[in-house]
Amino acid sequence: MSLRVALLGCGVVGTEVARLLTTQADELAARVGAPLELVGIAVRDLATPRDAVVDPALLTTDAEGLVERADVVIEVMGGIEPARSLLLRAIAGGAAVVTANKALLGEDGPTLYAAADAAGTDLYFEAAVAGAIPLVRPVRESLAGDRITRVLGIVNGTTNYVLDQMTTTGLGFAEAVAQAQELGYAEADPTADVEGFDAAAKAAILASLAFHTRVSVADVHREGISGVTADDVAWAGRTGHVIKLLAVAERLPDAQGTDGVVVRVHPALVPVEHPLAGVRGAFNAVFVQAEAAGELMFYGRGAGGAPTASAVLGDVVTVARHRVLGGKGPVESRYAELAVHPIGAARTRYQVHLRVADRPGVLAAVAAVFAQHGVSLQGVRQSGGSDEVRTAELLVITHGARESDLAATVADLRALEVVEDILSVLRVEGA
Amino acid sequence: MSLRVALLGCGVVGTEVARLLTTQADELAARVGAPLELVGIAVRDLATPRDAVVDPALLTTDAEGLVERADVVIEVMGGIEPARSLLLRAIAGGAAVVTANKALLGEDGPTLYAAADAAGTDLYFEAAVAGAIPLVRPVRESLAGDRITRVLGIVNGTTNYVLDQMTTTGLGFAEAVAQAQELGYAEADPTADVEGFDAAAKAAILASLAFHTRVSVADVHREGISGVTADDVAWAGRTGHVIKLLAVAERLPDAQGTDGVVVRVHPALVPVEHPLAGVRGAFNAVFVQAEAAGELMFYGRGAGGAPTASAVLGDVVTVARHRVLGGKGPVESRYAELAVHPIGAARTRYQVHLRVADRPGVLAAVAAVFAQHGVSLQGVRQSGGSDEVRTAELLVITHGARESDLAATVADLRALEVVEDILSVLRVEGA
Repeated sequence: MSLRVALLGCGVVGTEVARLLTTQADELAARVGAPLELVGIAVRDLATPRDAVVDPALLTTDAEGLVERADVVIEVMGGIEPARSLLLRAIAGGAAVVTANKALLGEDGPTLYAAADAAGTDLYFEAAVAGAIPLVRPVRESLAGDRITRVLGIVNGTTNYVLDQMTTTGLGFAEAVAQAQELGYAEADPTADVEGFDAAAKAAILASLAFHTRVSVADVHREGISGVTADDVAWAGRTGHVIKLLAVAERLPDAQGTDGVVVRVHPALVPVEHPLAGVRGAFNAVFVQAEAAGELMFYGRGAGGAPTASAVLGDVVTVARHRVLGGKGPVESRYAELAVHPIGAARTRYQVHLRVADRPGVLAAVAAVFAQHGVSLQGVRQSGGSDEVRTAELLVITHGARESDLAATVADLRALEVVEDILSVLRVEGA
Repeated sequence: MSLRVALLGCGVVGTEVARLLTTQADELAARVGAPLELVGIAVRDLATPRDAVVDPALLTTDAEGLVERADVVIEVMGGIEPARSLLLRAIAGGAAVVTANKALLGEDGPTLYAAADAAGTDLYFEAAVAGAIPLVRPVRESLAGDRITRVLGIVNGTTNYVLDQMTTTGLGFAEAVAQAQELGYAEADPTADVEGFDAAAKAAILASLAFHTRVSVADVHREGISGVTADDVAWAGRTGHVIKLLAVAERLPDAQGTDGVVVRVHPALVPVEHPLAGVRGAFNAVFVQAEAAGELMFYGRGAGGAPTASAVLGDVVTVARHRVLGGKGPVESRYAELAVHPIGAARTRYQVHLRVADRPGVLAAVAAVFAQHGVSLQGVRQSGGSDEVRTAELLVITHGARESDLAATVADLRALEVVEDILSVLRVEGA
């Protein structure tokens, strides 16, 4: 008996999946316990030129019909629709599903998880977060007997490349993006990457798994990197930091003491000696903190056809084995179902960069505003100032503080007569 | 229906396992789909004082009787016997087994894997390699659709701590070990760690999984760190390296072109800019290279009660779910069953440190010996030499070469009249 496999999508990842299904057919059959038969590849346009590894006889534009006759459905087409409808149809028909679709799972994962649980079928998605890095499986399974407290990582290669370039060359944001586009590291429309939508989708998926709680991309506090200036990058260097776009998901209480989850994506200062500071270019790295396991790090290629296809095939072997030998993957049960707190509940350190009048008493006035909101200071650095310009710059670094207190502090600073401008407010992570 | 869990061993790890089974009981039951009932804890001596989390009513010295009445057997007693007999009895009785016993799996893993496959039951052992780091599961499952070519890592915390101390303080080996013993980082008899036996057992387990081949600890080329001198460490620093005890498992052909596996544990020079160079103290880190996934790294605490217990519990949830929902973990099938080549088939770079006569023509004579064996040189560094001593030191770094060719080169160098001493031969990895 062979298992019928349907492939939805034949772009870069789909082509690599087709290649591995062909070249590794014997090893895959041995690991599964039955041959995997690729019965069709759904595409939008039959006429598109394709790699020789793709058998033209398998191509079809009838994705719905293909899904109906498969035991295992692999979805690598991306986007919300028609991917969602096709996967729900596959699940309803009892097929096992493997998807790399982070946008869909970030937006509507809980609907798919619930459908799979109700149908008693497998839904696997290792490739949807951090590409080839085995991250979903450890979080869902290896740490199933532990309690995860925090997930922190670099999960978007495009922004990591752009920030890298700004750091090493001193380029501004727009120039660095233009260069990344020329080299093919950024899309013609880079919005999904640079505004943090891609990272937010992955953060939502990771938070859902880590905390057994429904987290959608709409629950994620999201700030992209388009506001990061060459000046921010230069100042980060002067204080021993680099700027990285981080995804952070934490379990913590809100001001009322209710345990919950906060999920956020934003640029942050990372100390140069922290392992995340050394993650370059298109690589991804994710720290997972658990009560018993302590701190774990996973590192590897976060994107690309072959790495993503590797993650897809690992999932295919598992769900196909379940078909042959029985069994089922972990259920994304909702028993924890923590509250999702707004960003105000987050706690971290901050660096506030101000332009202030250069006269006696200014530092005392600024420090008093922080103190009023219970935000304690780790250090203050002053620069500039002369008889001519009569302004100076202050770089204030706080100890750990609640985001809502910091926001109130910043609002009051803005109203302070001696504060001429708030140049930047950046979170500091990993210190 | 609850699942009966037997715990064999109640040392540091066993106590933490008992703690998690108690404190996380509700979450574990939700994830498994049934409560886990700890029915007994086998110990050698009932009178030993124990943590309050251990219910004295559960203690028994009748491990065999306990195994007979369990659905899931957790073995954290360590050592070869009686652990092996108890696990074989558990497997024969159809119980699922979770073990953290690296010595046993390193010596006789294939016997246990075969027994579990024959009985159709689960054998899980995440905690046996690299403690809390999810490494076994990614290698067995996430990368099941890919082809692993190399595993390289730091898998022993004690030697990593000792080498760290030698590097940062300039201490000799014996002094650094004594200090590690005082701080509890090394055992009173440190042989298993410093001579590489512990790392070799883990390397054998990883190689078996990564290459689907029977590799026992006896197949592992093993060199400990007791021969590493303060002088070696100082020279490593001068050339931009640190010395680490590495476990390396690779798929590669021998001189006849037969594809096979070479597994080795030895001190090696690692460039300071390589991520492994920054792995400090008791942390472990393992690189896995796969054809499609590229390079992956896993990092975390490699030992300790709570981290190891976290890994054990993750496995317990998986095997318990299989009891409730059906299914079975991956079979360690033997279809690849590659040859295990001796160390001579390995290929790496080398640094050979020589004391030579200080006179014209010496470098040419030394270089000629390398050339005769087809070992090409990347660089030579000379130091010392004076009219008084009439000797100099040569540090020769090779390009990639086969171990057997390097060994023949060293033998010929030893016979060379101008070579007064071979101070060290170290492999260079990660460059």
